[in-house]
Amino acid sequence: MKYLDDRDKSKIIRRLKLLEGQVRGLQKMVDADTYCIDIITQTSAVKQGLSNVEDLLLANHLGHCVVHQISSGQIEKAKKEVLTVYKLKRK
Amino acid sequence: MKYLDDRDKSKIIRRLKLLEGQVRGLQKMVDADTYCIDIITQTSAVKQGLSNVEDLLLANHLGHCVVHQISSGQIEKAKKEVLTVYKLKRK
Amino acid sequence: MKYLDDRDKSKIIRRLKLLEGQVRGLQKMVDADTYCIDIITQTSAVKQGLSNVEDLLLANHLGHCVVHQISSGQIEKAKKEVLTVYKLKRK
Amino acid sequence: MKYLDDRDKSKIIRRLKLLEGQVRGLQKMVDADTYCIDIITQTSAVKQGLSNVEDLLLANHLGHCVVHQISSGQIEKAKKEVLTVYKLKRK
Repeated sequence: MKYLDDRDKSKIIRRLKLLEGQVRGLQKMVDADTYCIDIITQTSAVKQGLSNVEDLLLANHLGHCVVHQISSGQIEKAKKEVLTVYKLKRK
Repeated sequence: MKYLDDRDKSKIIRRLKLLEGQVRGLQKMVDADTYCIDIITQTSAVKQGLSNVEDLLLANHLGHCVVHQISSGQIEKAKKEVLTVYKLKRK
Repeated sequence: MKYLDDRDKSKIIRRLKLLEGQVRGLQKMVDADTYCIDIITQTSAVKQGLSNVEDLLLANHLGHCVVHQISSGQIEKAKKEVLTVYKLKRK
Repeated sequence: MKYLDDRDKSKIIRRLKLLEGQVRGLQKMVDADTYCIDIITQTSAVKQGLSNVEDLLLANHLGHCVVHQISSGQIEKAKKEVLTVYKLKRK
């Protein structure tokens, strides 16, 4: 099922490309003996960026898949999946 | 200051390379319209991997930089920096 | 709207009473100069307990309110609210 | 070892009393069938309040216990304990 419209899809892929570059940058920071506090500040920024991607994905999931699931009676499946990602959020 | 021994440095860079590959994999998942719940499960795994890297960095920071800072009287600096990364942890 | 059945309602109130007692216990720990690491371990357990209550509340919300909202066309409201608690989860 | 000065001790106990009252308030909210999203917003505020207490406790721990431990050669103990609470932070 196609739940992301083309604009959101491009936006998410663009953001993930940036995050990929940031993870590559982290390797250079470690290799260059950058001060550890500065590296952790940067790993934290990457995690925040991934969380933003998750928010966007969940918004689309709720607006498309969950609506579809509930309308077609798959309530348990809808419930179980949203709870799963909600519990993951803490990681 | 060199606070990572060569073994930990290699280990962290190796892990970051894997995480970079996983972020690249995420782009392919999004591009291929993979089910959003599966993508969020994977973004969450990447964040967990970054958290593990942070744990390793902080362990080294505490064992080297903080010991050095406290021994040389830079207590406020040591305290402030550890609190900073502790507060970031929630992200 | 009544979205919690009586059994879940009693269960949640019972858990919150326990957590209230644990927060009272924390005050005694602080007052008695308990070792700070042990106190933080306990505050963390209380937060975990609250997160478990949230999981239970969200499960009920998804199974009742969200189903009702989507069936009656309030999709934007349903989406917005679930995203709100999802973003809160990080705290 | 007394690591909290009297002012911080009173401040932390006062905050915990407020949080205890908020957990009691949560029970009333659940009992009165308050809308679940509003309850989760409130549980999240309590968790945030507990995190603020943790920040204060850790600041004192770093400024007193860790300095003492490192000065007296208990580096491994200092390191292990700070890492423990750092990993708990994610909860």
